[in-house]
Amino acid sequence: MVISGKKRKSFIGIQSLSVDEILHLLDFASEFKQNKFSNRSTAPTLEGKRIVNLFLEPSTRTRIAFEVATKSLGADIISIAEKSSSLTKGESLRDTASNIQALGADAIILRHSSPGAATYLSNQIEVPIINAGDGAHEHPSQALLDLFTLREELGDLNDKEVTILGDILFSRVARSNIWGLLKLGAKVTLSGPSTLVPKRMEEFGVRVTYDLSEAVNGADAIMLLRIQHERQTQSHFPSLGEYSKMFGLKESGCKPSKHTIILHPGPINRGVEIDSKLADSDQSVILDQVSNGVCVRKAILYEYCS
Amino acid sequence: MVISGKKRKSFIGIQSLSVDEILHLLDFASEFKQNKFSNRSTAPTLEGKRIVNLFLEPSTRTRIAFEVATKSLGADIISIAEKSSSLTKGESLRDTASNIQALGADAIILRHSSPGAATYLSNQIEVPIINAGDGAHEHPSQALLDLFTLREELGDLNDKEVTILGDILFSRVARSNIWGLLKLGAKVTLSGPSTLVPKRMEEFGVRVTYDLSEAVNGADAIMLLRIQHERQTQSHFPSLGEYSKMFGLKESGCKPSKHTIILHPGPINRGVEIDSKLADSDQSVILDQVSNGVCVRKAILYEYCS
Amino acid sequence: MVISGKKRKSFIGIQSLSVDEILHLLDFASEFKQNKFSNRSTAPTLEGKRIVNLFLEPSTRTRIAFEVATKSLGADIISIAEKSSSLTKGESLRDTASNIQALGADAIILRHSSPGAATYLSNQIEVPIINAGDGAHEHPSQALLDLFTLREELGDLNDKEVTILGDILFSRVARSNIWGLLKLGAKVTLSGPSTLVPKRMEEFGVRVTYDLSEAVNGADAIMLLRIQHERQTQSHFPSLGEYSKMFGLKESGCKPSKHTIILHPGPINRGVEIDSKLADSDQSVILDQVSNGVCVRKAILYEYCS
Repeated sequence: MVISGKKRKSFIGIQSLSVDEILHLLDFASEFKQNKFSNRSTAPTLEGKRIVNLFLEPSTRTRIAFEVATKSLGADIISIAEKSSSLTKGESLRDTASNIQALGADAIILRHSSPGAATYLSNQIEVPIINAGDGAHEHPSQALLDLFTLREELGDLNDKEVTILGDILFSRVARSNIWGLLKLGAKVTLSGPSTLVPKRMEEFGVRVTYDLSEAVNGADAIMLLRIQHERQTQSHFPSLGEYSKMFGLKESGCKPSKHTIILHPGPINRGVEIDSKLADSDQSVILDQVSNGVCVRKAILYEYCS
Repeated sequence: MVISGKKRKSFIGIQSLSVDEILHLLDFASEFKQNKFSNRSTAPTLEGKRIVNLFLEPSTRTRIAFEVATKSLGADIISIAEKSSSLTKGESLRDTASNIQALGADAIILRHSSPGAATYLSNQIEVPIINAGDGAHEHPSQALLDLFTLREELGDLNDKEVTILGDILFSRVARSNIWGLLKLGAKVTLSGPSTLVPKRMEEFGVRVTYDLSEAVNGADAIMLLRIQHERQTQSHFPSLGEYSKMFGLKESGCKPSKHTIILHPGPINRGVEIDSKLADSDQSVILDQVSNGVCVRKAILYEYCS
Repeated sequence: MVISGKKRKSFIGIQSLSVDEILHLLDFASEFKQNKFSNRSTAPTLEGKRIVNLFLEPSTRTRIAFEVATKSLGADIISIAEKSSSLTKGESLRDTASNIQALGADAIILRHSSPGAATYLSNQIEVPIINAGDGAHEHPSQALLDLFTLREELGDLNDKEVTILGDILFSRVARSNIWGLLKLGAKVTLSGPSTLVPKRMEEFGVRVTYDLSEAVNGADAIMLLRIQHERQTQSHFPSLGEYSKMFGLKESGCKPSKHTIILHPGPINRGVEIDSKLADSDQSVILDQVSNGVCVRKAILYEYCS
């Protein structure tokens, strides 16, 4: 991707992107969504390219969104899951990736459990790495689709109030969104059980509150985060029931205003982070996020792999 | 699919199909088999469609038959196996399917261990559901390919004698075939160990016998059923050897007439339901069933997804 | 493949190929590598063909190389991994393959843990079998890509000195390469711990030495073999550290001359068979092997499946 003369090889994280780069990707995704390129001879295409999905953690929506986006752009996709790969024979990640490159891959979409895995690999091999989530570090394509959905609903994000609620400590989605929202001028509030909100986040210019009603009142949007059972090595709250009682969004009790939109990266734990009625209400844009994810990934793939 | 003005969204089971709908699908499949559409500009096509194989139980032939049929019709197929899906993170089936739909799927082919899963999902989401087997309930595409193969061998099924032999209690294949055969006018006999044949099946107009020679004599066709080790929670017969001795089809002993054709949905347990010689004989149409399965699935996919 | 009037159905092993057949495949692969067919209307193509990857052992590079080669030739590929196949229901390999054939496959690429599996299957079913590794027997497409890489680096292999070093006893790669190298006139030396080099190999016309410096000095090429933890049922050497000390290639100590090229079929165990510096040096052609593997597989697939 070239913005103001600078060529960036890989798509690693929101933290390192400029505001211009973020806005360019969002606008480009919007053109895909509006189907502006159909029937044009100059439509963006990745025909003849070979993209590899190297997903070393389970995923439905991210993996398939990238697969659909890749095929829509005319490229071939090859999927490698951990259990059928040579990583089970003790091969290093770098060697697996070098081999994938030698086999003719034009880009690697990587999901990995270690923070920094995408950066590391990008420094080791030549083809672009698209970070599809690296441990608790970043999940930048998710943040872009969240920003895309927020802009679609709220317009310009400058001075909009966005609350991120839940398991922030373990969340790469939260980390990527905090960078993205701040860069686009939004006012960010973090909330959740004190054990799940990292200390000293105020230094980055966000507000922190452990009081749900403070977090919810006045918010233009609430981004819920999934309780990541699988990433927590010790219990950070007494029980799921307790979490739901204290911080779950519900129709009853401390509920968001009718004008507040609700996002969630999925998969949702119904009755934990949000009750079913609210998840399926008009305020919820959860499935829009999923659809927008395909357009956003088309923009990313084209910018970094063409 | 539209028959007599009624539009059916999903392909759920044989029980709910009319005779006309069944015959239409069989005739349409026959046109695919005879390659009637090749080189025609008006050939049935699903180009630009995106079909998702959501198989939550292991399968070779059904999954691949649907995959081959989908690709032959020019559509894209995306396969999701249980272990790499978000279902492992506790997501509900409905939410997984809603997400697949939001990602741009035009239809979902579902195999699930719970009876009723396909109906449930069809009521919850907008895109058509193609039932590829739901627990011990129905396996309608299998029954259609069985009916197709029977008609190919025997002509009109009216008054033809068809015996279904084996583990009927746990078999979705049996259930779908009983409905289909009765609708097309065949005379159906069920047989097997008394513990594996459901009680009171006579009420539906079928004959039940626990005597193998009665079941075999005079049959135009014998449909063997696989002993479903994986679906039986307790032992319903003393041993596989005992089963084979009492109800296995063999060259020696109580054997079918040379004119009786033999079907099996596979995978066969050689030496249990049938001995190897008979399985590989001219009477066996087991591999024809597999080939016909591709044509039948093309007809189903086109009717429900175009 | 037809050489001197003889039609060979399946691609099973190097042992049974004539020198002419080997040279023809290598030359054909070279034409693919030089891209001689691009933009030609008569380019070799497998359009409309359906190739099945039946991999019953884990693999990254071989499976993907075949997948890339298949798609490059315009054919469809369907991948079946052991865990999602009916083999988990106790179906025999022959029945699984017969079913795959009945589903419309034009060829089956087979990786199996039993020596002889490819030959057996080729005798049982009609479509060509491409052996992608059968137990400790042969891995012929790997040997062809090794020969291809050696010829690319060294020219005509007649009288060239090639050392195969490491776990020869359990290696199908070694077995296939020994046949191939001898047929093309190379002088072959086998070396490694005495427990890992099969007895009486001299009878086939190769030299055996358990002394690393003898094995390394004067070699035009050294083919390292992977220590196959997964195929060894008992320990054949005290420890990986001991192996590395005695037979690992290193920058320090007994090291190959600057003119000796180094091959390894991967995945490499860095610090065991070879140290990292040497693996990443100019002498190493390990990643060239991987790239060449795609061209070689295109030649094989076209010759046996068109």
